Amino acid sequence: MAVIVPFESQPSASIERLVELLAPDMERVNATILSRTGSDVTMIPEVANHLISSGGKRLRPMLTLAMAQLSNYAGDGHIRFAAAVEFMHTATLLHDDVVDESDMRRGKPAARLLWGNEASVLVGDFLLGQAFKMMVEVGNLRALEILSNAAAVIAEGEVMQLAAAKNTATSEDEYLAVIRAKTAELFAAACEVSPVLAGRPKAEQAACRSYGMNLGIAFQLIDDALDYGGKSSKLGKNVGDDFREGKITLPVVLSYRRGSPAEREFWNRTLGKGEQSDGDLETAIGFMTQHRAIEDTVQRARHYGEIAVDALALAPESDTKRALLETVEFCTARAH
Amino acid sequence: MAVIVPFESQPSASIERLVELLAPDMERVNATILSRTGSDVTMIPEVANHLISSGGKRLRPMLTLAMAQLSNYAGDGHIRFAAAVEFMHTATLLHDDVVDESDMRRGKPAARLLWGNEASVLVGDFLLGQAFKMMVEVGNLRALEILSNAAAVIAEGEVMQLAAAKNTATSEDEYLAVIRAKTAELFAAACEVSPVLAGRPKAEQAACRSYGMNLGIAFQLIDDALDYGGKSSKLGKNVGDDFREGKITLPVVLSYRRGSPAEREFWNRTLGKGEQSDGDLETAIGFMTQHRAIEDTVQRARHYGEIAVDALALAPESDTKRALLETVEFCTARAH
Repeated sequence: MAVIVPFESQPSASIERLVELLAPDMERVNATILSRTGSDVTMIPEVANHLISSGGKRLRPMLTLAMAQLSNYAGDGHIRFAAAVEFMHTATLLHDDVVDESDMRRGKPAARLLWGNEASVLVGDFLLGQAFKMMVEVGNLRALEILSNAAAVIAEGEVMQLAAAKNTATSEDEYLAVIRAKTAELFAAACEVSPVLAGRPKAEQAACRSYGMNLGIAFQLIDDALDYGGKSSKLGKNVGDDFREGKITLPVVLSYRRGSPAEREFWNRTLGKGEQSDGDLETAIGFMTQHRAIEDTVQRARHYGEIAVDALALAPESDTKRALLETVEFCTARAH
Repeated sequence: MAVIVPFESQPSASIERLVELLAPDMERVNATILSRTGSDVTMIPEVANHLISSGGKRLRPMLTLAMAQLSNYAGDGHIRFAAAVEFMHTATLLHDDVVDESDMRRGKPAARLLWGNEASVLVGDFLLGQAFKMMVEVGNLRALEILSNAAAVIAEGEVMQLAAAKNTATSEDEYLAVIRAKTAELFAAACEVSPVLAGRPKAEQAACRSYGMNLGIAFQLIDDALDYGGKSSKLGKNVGDDFREGKITLPVVLSYRRGSPAEREFWNRTLGKGEQSDGDLETAIGFMTQHRAIEDTVQRARHYGEIAVDALALAPESDTKRALLETVEFCTARAH
């Protein structure tokens, strides 16, 4: 079934510029990741590398590296922090797959299907432990505070999502609170930590954090939209995954509020009670199209993307800044 | 079925002396635990308190507090570190229950049965995040290093155990490596951190660590023995849990090595393949009794207990030291 979603026709933005600028640093991050997933317990590198080497964009560690450039940071603590950010993200993915009972992740079978839920939980814990070890080594307490706070907030956001699961009457604000915590907080921390390491003024730290937070919200909203209209091959997951897992995301929140009583009954049955049958996904997408729920989710994402752009307005012009602005464009116009 | 295990007839040692000495500090730890499990996301305090308030002995945080007394520590960082140690332990229990598919924990239904595997994974992650936040607040990098290293080692030990699962030919040394990592490392870190906070000489830090490490090994071995002969009501778990879960513990390792080929076939069927039927637990305990496997597991535990006692030999006499030595006795003679 063909659904026209507006971002399919956007002019193509790319993160190539960012990737190029960060290539030497990213090589060091990759070497660090590789050496820190090493263990005599062979299952650990197996599981970790299944996910880490499976072609994620490494957007989060790139943000840490880019903000270090923007802050003219001269040390090398950003390498370990970037690797730690990727470890924290990977740990979250491993635990999420157990929580969501997912079958696919980044276009590959989820680790839990290959090694079991047990390994996903425990290797996730190992990566979290390694992340903290690396960050402690750098020896900056304020930077540690930012990332340990993020770890607690992320988990809190995940529990929040779990508690709100199946609640079709979730408000947009409630939903935003969840994605701020579970997704955007790590983007924000990944960005904030570099000016902190570089000893930049509070205002610059706040600007970097704001860029990350708003980019993270936009990123998650686009992810939500793509789940009802993206292309499986680019996304590494299937259209309708969120629907099948009964997740209440913004396209659902908007469709539920804008729909008729009969439509609300549909959402309550399929997502509230999880009773789905053939054709329900198509019906869901039909309702979303009718109420412009996917388009408006993308619109909302653009709103946060614009805040991210403005957050960097006071930074002097540079290649890094241009690349970071283009990254916002890329994230809100993904899936070409 | 009645099995006579030697520790049932030991003279009664107690941790009452330790509990009394630490009462004022422990009250502060409990208040910290309570305030740090608070969250607007109501599921978090629910799940966390289900486990935290369910009458565990809080042995690990008590060790941190006792070592702070022994080190004449004048600050108050030990309170937050003790709370963090308990959080790390609780997180491990929550994740273990998911991994083991346990039904009982500390004499209550496991959290995963009440709130689901998801909540157990995520609330565990939240507690880990909070633990790191608290420790960062204290601001001692070396102390942070000890506990973040412990977090990675513990997870590594759990994965090691998972990889060795069902391997009835596991050697005693391999088994020891697992319990050193998954259990004793947290005891060791809980003890080591206090002399570090107090700025005591390296030799004293090493002595405290050694006490904790060896006490932890002894503690786990007694746990293993009790699982084949303890009393359910005291232990908060049922006799035979390890057997039913197919866990290879020291009583099994010894029985397998000392048994006939037919007995090895029994162990391979029941634990290697997990094919169990009525009467198998009784048969297992019979083989263990015949080969003195439970008694010798207790003997091994006493060996490590003695190392723990000697580790503190150079510390000047004090009420705290006497209470710590009695704690070793208590741990190796539990389950009266």
